[in-house]
Amino acid sequence: MTAGAAERLVIFTPSGRRGRVADGTTVLDAARSLGVDLDSVCGGRGLCGRCQVRPAEGEFPKHGITSTGGHLSPAGPDEAEYDRLRGLAADRRLGCRAAIHGDVLVDVPPESQVHRQVVRKGVPVRDFVIDPVVRLFEVEVERPTLETPGGDLARLRAALTNEWGLDGGALEVDLHVIRALQPALEAGGYRVTVAIHDGRHVTAVWPGLHDRALGVAIDIGSTTIAGHLADLADGAVLASDGVMNPQIRFGEDLMSRVSYAMLHDGGATEMTRVVRDALGSLVTGLAQRAEVDAADILELTIVGNPIMHHLALGIDPVPLGSAPFALATDGAVRTTARDLELPLRAGARVYLLPCIAGHVGADAAGAILAETPYLADELTLLVDVGTNAEIVLGNRDRLLAASSPTGPAFEGAQISCGQRAAPGAIERVRIDRATLEPRFKVIGSNRWSDETGFAASTRRTGITGVCGSGIVEVMAELFLAGVITPDGTIDGSFAARTPRVVADGRTFAYLLNEGGPGIDDGPASPRLTITQNDVRAIQLAKAALYAGARLLMDHLGVEAVDQVKLAGAFGSQIDPLHALILGLVPDAPLEKVGPAGNAAGTGALIALLSGEARREIEGVVRRVEKIETAIEPRFQEHFVDAMAIPHRTAPSPHLAARVELPRRSPAGQSATPAPGPDGGSQHGRRVNTRRTVAAATEQR
Amino acid sequence: MTAGAAERLVIFTPSGRRGRVADGTTVLDAARSLGVDLDSVCGGRGLCGRCQVRPAEGEFPKHGITSTGGHLSPAGPDEAEYDRLRGLAADRRLGCRAAIHGDVLVDVPPESQVHRQVVRKGVPVRDFVIDPVVRLFEVEVERPTLETPGGDLARLRAALTNEWGLDGGALEVDLHVIRALQPALEAGGYRVTVAIHDGRHVTAVWPGLHDRALGVAIDIGSTTIAGHLADLADGAVLASDGVMNPQIRFGEDLMSRVSYAMLHDGGATEMTRVVRDALGSLVTGLAQRAEVDAADILELTIVGNPIMHHLALGIDPVPLGSAPFALATDGAVRTTARDLELPLRAGARVYLLPCIAGHVGADAAGAILAETPYLADELTLLVDVGTNAEIVLGNRDRLLAASSPTGPAFEGAQISCGQRAAPGAIERVRIDRATLEPRFKVIGSNRWSDETGFAASTRRTGITGVCGSGIVEVMAELFLAGVITPDGTIDGSFAARTPRVVADGRTFAYLLNEGGPGIDDGPASPRLTITQNDVRAIQLAKAALYAGARLLMDHLGVEAVDQVKLAGAFGSQIDPLHALILGLVPDAPLEKVGPAGNAAGTGALIALLSGEARREIEGVVRRVEKIETAIEPRFQEHFVDAMAIPHRTAPSPHLAARVELPRRSPAGQSATPAPGPDGGSQHGRRVNTRRTVAAATEQR
Repeated sequence: MTAGAAERLVIFTPSGRRGRVADGTTVLDAARSLGVDLDSVCGGRGLCGRCQVRPAEGEFPKHGITSTGGHLSPAGPDEAEYDRLRGLAADRRLGCRAAIHGDVLVDVPPESQVHRQVVRKGVPVRDFVIDPVVRLFEVEVERPTLETPGGDLARLRAALTNEWGLDGGALEVDLHVIRALQPALEAGGYRVTVAIHDGRHVTAVWPGLHDRALGVAIDIGSTTIAGHLADLADGAVLASDGVMNPQIRFGEDLMSRVSYAMLHDGGATEMTRVVRDALGSLVTGLAQRAEVDAADILELTIVGNPIMHHLALGIDPVPLGSAPFALATDGAVRTTARDLELPLRAGARVYLLPCIAGHVGADAAGAILAETPYLADELTLLVDVGTNAEIVLGNRDRLLAASSPTGPAFEGAQISCGQRAAPGAIERVRIDRATLEPRFKVIGSNRWSDETGFAASTRRTGITGVCGSGIVEVMAELFLAGVITPDGTIDGSFAARTPRVVADGRTFAYLLNEGGPGIDDGPASPRLTITQNDVRAIQLAKAALYAGARLLMDHLGVEAVDQVKLAGAFGSQIDPLHALILGLVPDAPLEKVGPAGNAAGTGALIALLSGEARREIEGVVRRVEKIETAIEPRFQEHFVDAMAIPHRTAPSPHLAARVELPRRSPAGQSATPAPGPDGGSQHGRRVNTRRTVAAATEQR
Repeated sequence: MTAGAAERLVIFTPSGRRGRVADGTTVLDAARSLGVDLDSVCGGRGLCGRCQVRPAEGEFPKHGITSTGGHLSPAGPDEAEYDRLRGLAADRRLGCRAAIHGDVLVDVPPESQVHRQVVRKGVPVRDFVIDPVVRLFEVEVERPTLETPGGDLARLRAALTNEWGLDGGALEVDLHVIRALQPALEAGGYRVTVAIHDGRHVTAVWPGLHDRALGVAIDIGSTTIAGHLADLADGAVLASDGVMNPQIRFGEDLMSRVSYAMLHDGGATEMTRVVRDALGSLVTGLAQRAEVDAADILELTIVGNPIMHHLALGIDPVPLGSAPFALATDGAVRTTARDLELPLRAGARVYLLPCIAGHVGADAAGAILAETPYLADELTLLVDVGTNAEIVLGNRDRLLAASSPTGPAFEGAQISCGQRAAPGAIERVRIDRATLEPRFKVIGSNRWSDETGFAASTRRTGITGVCGSGIVEVMAELFLAGVITPDGTIDGSFAARTPRVVADGRTFAYLLNEGGPGIDDGPASPRLTITQNDVRAIQLAKAALYAGARLLMDHLGVEAVDQVKLAGAFGSQIDPLHALILGLVPDAPLEKVGPAGNAAGTGALIALLSGEARREIEGVVRRVEKIETAIEPRFQEHFVDAMAIPHRTAPSPHLAARVELPRRSPAGQSATPAPGPDGGSQHGRRVNTRRTVAAATEQR
């Protein structure tokens, strides 16, 4: 500040930072000198509009200031031009153009902050603060002359130091940026914008002002690969999309893919190639959908279970297929789109969230980052069901994780009528307790099968099978109706009362869909039955899931959890009450059991938008206690107990408060009968129970 | 050290480090704890033999110790096995196997030091200390178990921390290393060797012990690409080779290549491709020649003039073709072999030395690193002649650099009989002062043309033209014979005295080779004349070179230099005396004018073997004062003066002491006659002068 120059008091909200600046200082310069978080890409040339501020009008006794927009220089031609091109609200000024000529209180609106709070609407993301991993900086580079014969890159470094206060000399510059620098300088009249990744690497250069940096957050599921395309500056999600994982042709579930890699030379490489192709299509498709230039995508984040994670990186997944299930790496991986052979610009970087253990992957880390159990007092059970269930339990004090070998039954595999969740699959089922007649909903239609127009609404998809949530619901409904006993036997005595229970060799089955020619020219539908084997497969799966959760509860020394979050596609479809009735997860207040949506993908999105979040999840994952179910004798005990429906011994006060469960069967191979929570009164209240459940399920 | 354990005094030479260690400590462990530079790759398992030491026998009053090999544990089976496999001298022990049981003085021979002094024999490299850029570390990685479910990479990091004291967690690991880790662990029984580049990046992994890391130092000349393959641990040069620069087909000299890039779409890309192909062949050829595995090459260093440098990096060289000759980057470039599409292992790194200015490239930086004028008190003039001469002048106080537009005449271009230095080219010439008959030597033969057997010795190559050094010598000889006047005119009056001086239009020419059918079935040889135009072209070139050097002397305020180093192929071939006679460089003591060999390539080799040297040359280059000849009016004045032979006004006491120069011509377009160093007496001593010169040149 020049000695003798008039000084003006400037106060910024919401930060409360204040100080005196020389008369004539711009708001942007004042913000910088006071350490106020005010964005800018163009470096104060009135072009990018990122530094918009709101001068406050009036007296502010709390701040000891009388402020007025009149204390700033009047809006000039640059702001008029900006308004004409991109619009500038009446109460807004460009911080780089408004000079301070009197004491003033200036509000920095959230969208003008680099570290702005994101409040999401479309995508169900918790609020978090953006901490951009990539930032754009426009600079004017000195033109070379015969007198200053240094390199253009050295002059770019100097400009970054002088205009932005960066340590230009310490930046690492990608070779492709060095290659592109002179043409960009030429085209931009020696103004260029550079992208700086992680404060260290110059990864892109454009002529002139370039104020768009995009990123894509990807969740590689074994069935579906889902992505969000977001603006890295404001966190806006510009497009979301999903594509099938083309690895499905090598095996529906994870273990069959590992087998493929084990049995076929080059099989892993082939799966790596196809998943990368799919990632490429997804990313370019997202850009088309959002009508943006894919060349502006500078950052990718990826989550996935360990096998998807390894295959995406080109690492042989075979060691993950057998004990001790050793990951090649469990740390976060920072690499480049080029290393993954993705069709993005040369400088694009890729971040894979850390994995937790051999079967608890970066998807679980993403779910933890999205749901933040590590910040809460209450005890959260976070479950992501796949071929292996990834189970996380804990709160701010401790966090434990395990995987449980559920097998692929919840994904519809190994089930006679099963299929994965896709149009045509039965996803919800209700069974009339009196007639045992079913009604159901099919993915792709929003009508129940007993509603008019159902046939028409399924003409395109047909009825093709039953997906995981449909199987869980039909089993829970049959259990409530008494057709399936607590030990999991389909009670053949019902065959005499209803044609829906049919003999199936030496056991019985429930006829969910008769099948037959299509109605109204619709496609023919198959005969779909739930067989005794199907029931056993689901029992095994749910017992594994339940036992894993119980094991973590043992390690934590608790008998109950405060909330249950069901992540992933299956977790989103499943009815929480049916999940509790069947005993998939330990008892919890029904209103505290719910879907977490695609928590893994949400975590990838948060990591895309925040370097701080990356450091956070890396720290959290390091302190997660990893429990290996395979070596815990108690897991086997819990597993055996959990074969019963809902389970043999565990307390279920919340479920009992909501529904009255059928009396336990005195027979059964694995489930020894035990008194229910309210003892012998169960049988007498059976009808009442059904009504309660019917009411509860109908509400949903 | 355990409390109460007996302590032994150990002293290491040559470092003089001393300390007390617990009885039973190995020499290697003692060295580590005392900070003694003792090498090891296998981490103390008696395998690699890098930690060999020599226990001293006798009394050492200076050190206050009586030492004997008997104070060490006796040699055991590991040392016997090592001796059997690789040989172990009788006075040597493996430091990791010799336990200290008494006071002992241990010598660490140079070859067991990581930072060992290199004394070169084959390649003319100054002595320097190796500071390996890549180091190998063998470790035993804990096997994964179900109880320890972390990633293998995390366990590798832990092993590097525990066994080697590295900050394993901070290492950046290449993705291809993560990919290769599990197979390497498997194959090596959980022992692997990793390569760590620059103390930061893990760039390679091998199963078990791997103790070979190689590197290649490359000088990309516009004509020839030369490389040295060296062992990174001991600096041994295992092979040296050169290949033609295939860019020659796009233009013989630098400027014609820039023109090619300017005039042809994709021309620069094409030249990048072919030079990279040539680099690839050179490197694989070097490996074959040395009978080593090219996969062990982990490091490349590259020098070259700015246009070669930019084309190798894939940067458009067109901006270097016109003012202000702006480099894309002048800093050192650290990149990967993959970025340069070289057929090396994925982790191989590439380092390009910094460039100095638009026409003073990484080759000049290499030459500076090799010749180290910045360490000397005496004033060195270092000249590398190419299409542009790169000129460096200075000492430990100041260093200046410039380039001078000599054009390609010294490389044989624009000369009627000129060609580049290749088999068949006349490279040395002597002319009889009386008869004016020439005798010469041809590249590929070691006989003079007047010796018996000359015809046979050139049968394969023939006589194809005259290269730069040959042209300089014939001109200097003709000048001494008085045929060429100080202003550069071929004196037609000699035509009456000898058939060697012939009319050539309105000027005269000197007939160097009559041409005609080959002798003894050899190939026919062409008629080769030195024309007046040829003389003018060389005058222009040498004037530019001389003027550039004079300009730097002006800037430094000196009238003489202490030594002149002529780098590059031309600089190696040229006779220093002829160079002084013709006035290529300022006067200096004849014994202090000499070739620097391929100083640029030597600099690349030093940078290959020493990270410290890289930091050193980067620092030196930053403080080099860059002089742009094009904007210095004095350059033009010096240039005009230097058209005369040897020059018009500059003092030449050293040359005058050695030879007596012909009297200056009173006529001449650019060279005004001026008195010689000893004034009018020159003419009278002419015969005497010739004799002196003849004696001087015959000695060489």
